[in-house]
Amino acid sequence: MQTQTTPTAPQPQTTGRSLEHPRREEIRLEDVLHALSEPMRMRVVRTLAEEPGELSCSVFDLPVSKSTTTHHFRVLRECGVINQIYRGTAKMNALRRDDLDALFPGLLDSVLAAAALQEGRLGGDRG
Amino acid sequence: MQTQTTPTAPQPQTTGRSLEHPRREEIRLEDVLHALSEPMRMRVVRTLAEEPGELSCSVFDLPVSKSTTTHHFRVLRECGVINQIYRGTAKMNALRRDDLDALFPGLLDSVLAAAALQEGRLGGDRG
Repeated sequence: MQTQTTPTAPQPQTTGRSLEHPRREEIRLEDVLHALSEPMRMRVVRTLAEEPGELSCSVFDLPVSKSTTTHHFRVLRECGVINQIYRGTAKMNALRRDDLDALFPGLLDSVLAAAALQEGRLGGDRG
Repeated sequence: MQTQTTPTAPQPQTTGRSLEHPRREEIRLEDVLHALSEPMRMRVVRTLAEEPGELSCSVFDLPVSKSTTTHHFRVLRECGVINQIYRGTAKMNALRRDDLDALFPGLLDSVLAAAALQEGRLGGDRG
């Protein structure tokens, strides 16, 4: 959540395009687990975990509709799992690994490892 | 899932009271995370994790209705997180730690640790 300290001042140009995020201390375990409990969202998180930087939404070719994809990214953002920021016309995404590791040490890694193990057992068609 | 190999044979007395469980290999990470993403269910799992044996449903005094409590236990069972068995008139519950640790090493422990950390940060009133 971004607080506006000078509400009467002229809005910076980016305000209309900034996206709401929970602060680190607002992130809740139950929300993180909820965000990760959906296979498409897990796929996004696994891909982001392999990338040191940001990825545009457009690089994720999920087998769901564009509006469903947008929904999944919003859930990940609102639950504190990813940061989303507009850069020009692109919405860029990055895993909030530092925040999650600070709040819940080892959790993200064990979830990612579990997802990899399950994929190994079941096969899978991650893009 | 318990398959009935002799569907035309007389039903054993316990059939009507046995409860369906996924076999170990049917347990899915996304279902486990979903089961754990609800605070009342997490509370049940944390309590069961502290107990080496089974606990009756009646020992869990959750601040929700009886039907909601029953629902939460069913979700935990159907997602492969707990075993439920009738013993006389009591429904007994146990964590499927062996199955979860075999499928997803370290996951349950990291979730339990994360829940304890969050409780420490936020306070909490686990019964």
